[in-house]
Amino acid sequence: MPAISYVNGLYVDYEDAKVNIEDRGYQFADGVYEVFAVIGKKIIDYDGHLNRLFRSLKEISLNSPIVKEAYLFHIRNLIRKNKINDGLIYLQITRGVAQRDFKFPNNVKPSIVITAKSISMSNYDSNFRRGIKVKTTEDLRWKRVDIKTINLLPPVLAKQKAVQSGCDEAWMIDSEGYITEGSSSNAWILSNKKLITTPANNSILKGITRTSLINALRKKKIKFEERRFNKKDIKNADEAFITSATQFVMPVIKVDNIKIGNGKVGKNAYIFRDAYMEAIQLK
Amino acid sequence: MPAISYVNGLYVDYEDAKVNIEDRGYQFADGVYEVFAVIGKKIIDYDGHLNRLFRSLKEISLNSPIVKEAYLFHIRNLIRKNKINDGLIYLQITRGVAQRDFKFPNNVKPSIVITAKSISMSNYDSNFRRGIKVKTTEDLRWKRVDIKTINLLPPVLAKQKAVQSGCDEAWMIDSEGYITEGSSSNAWILSNKKLITTPANNSILKGITRTSLINALRKKKIKFEERRFNKKDIKNADEAFITSATQFVMPVIKVDNIKIGNGKVGKNAYIFRDAYMEAIQLK
Repeated sequence: MPAISYVNGLYVDYEDAKVNIEDRGYQFADGVYEVFAVIGKKIIDYDGHLNRLFRSLKEISLNSPIVKEAYLFHIRNLIRKNKINDGLIYLQITRGVAQRDFKFPNNVKPSIVITAKSISMSNYDSNFRRGIKVKTTEDLRWKRVDIKTINLLPPVLAKQKAVQSGCDEAWMIDSEGYITEGSSSNAWILSNKKLITTPANNSILKGITRTSLINALRKKKIKFEERRFNKKDIKNADEAFITSATQFVMPVIKVDNIKIGNGKVGKNAYIFRDAYMEAIQLK
Repeated sequence: MPAISYVNGLYVDYEDAKVNIEDRGYQFADGVYEVFAVIGKKIIDYDGHLNRLFRSLKEISLNSPIVKEAYLFHIRNLIRKNKINDGLIYLQITRGVAQRDFKFPNNVKPSIVITAKSISMSNYDSNFRRGIKVKTTEDLRWKRVDIKTINLLPPVLAKQKAVQSGCDEAWMIDSEGYITEGSSSNAWILSNKKLITTPANNSILKGITRTSLINALRKKKIKFEERRFNKKDIKNADEAFITSATQFVMPVIKVDNIKIGNGKVGKNAYIFRDAYMEAIQLK
């Protein structure tokens, strides 16, 4: 449980971390969010996440309730107040509290919530060494998944399907049979010594970790291509991965009943993870 | 503002009507809802709405936090406590409070919120006599709009676009050019003396008011057809309407720049409204 959160201007304990039932986030999913990872008290890719937050706000015509400079201040305060060494910061902004009506309310201040929790990097390391299993599911989402909104029931249902099948993540498949992305991660395969991931357009959220890994690959001159891939490509892949702010680079050892490579974490997983860890911007 | 609401077992005043920031309704839009109209203290189509609520719960694998019989009890209490004569009951159920994780939490009780507010039937009557204007927008929603979930940002954005264009409602158009439904209503046209509405499949929410009107039409032997229609059909239409729990039957006098009929409320609007009002089940 998050110990101390920031809720609409106040630092509050868990039992006081509440919003009104007419917050439009609660009734309409009328809001956007970001998740920031923290390693050794430093925020990873802060600028990337904050800039994407402001893009998301703009795409749904929502104003930031606080000045841009204040985000870092509050996030750092939560890291300190919650004694986070390694952890996650969750931040969401919604269109505020108003009598229920589909159209935007007038003169309502958006709501802001920031929470912090610790994570264990040794858990990450053991998951990494084991690798994760993926289940493919139909991509049922709306047409603007490039915006990071809290309309998350479709990926929630996909993720739950994966978990119920003994898997760790869902990869969503579009109507043409191509993988779009994971329920809360981007999808990658390594094939013919080339790393492949779905192009960033309206069909995926442009991951910040994805971008950082791409930059790291470029620096290391590792071959890489943005193109769509399907289950046949997965069958032919030597390795597979997901990337996300909370999973960093995580190897995939199985997709449905397809064993990736020899079904164990491949050597390139370590290379890519180390390239990413070396390249990330800390703040 | 709703005066007294039912929130997770308690009747509370507006300022105490709050939920935890980790309610999955707030972070994942992981929930479903219904809106019941009340006329003269009587609930309209109660069984239809309650049965649809239970269908929605089932579709997202969520259990009701209270027994089915208790819903009517709490709704009637709110009608009484808030001195509602004509009004609306809003009811939502979410997957409860849990540390943020896409997969379903274990052993968490779902959250339930019920609010009540008064509406003015004379406002409805004057809107009816004036008729409403509709703007068409792209249907961006997910593939399971047949479930009444709180993932409502897509229709919120559609409705806002309509309002900003001086219209009252949005009609969403699918990739093949057909009208699916309104942002929070079903869409109808009257053409060649036949009333036409989009078939109820995965592309629309099967409206309770829609079903009641269809039953009323059948009883009156009014010609009626469930089929898709596009903007060309709208151009040829003699009249147009929306139906919803909050708008009942409401005539449409303009769609984009297409004047419907002579741009005034047609005579059939009155016939259909009266047929609906005569046929509705009150509880």
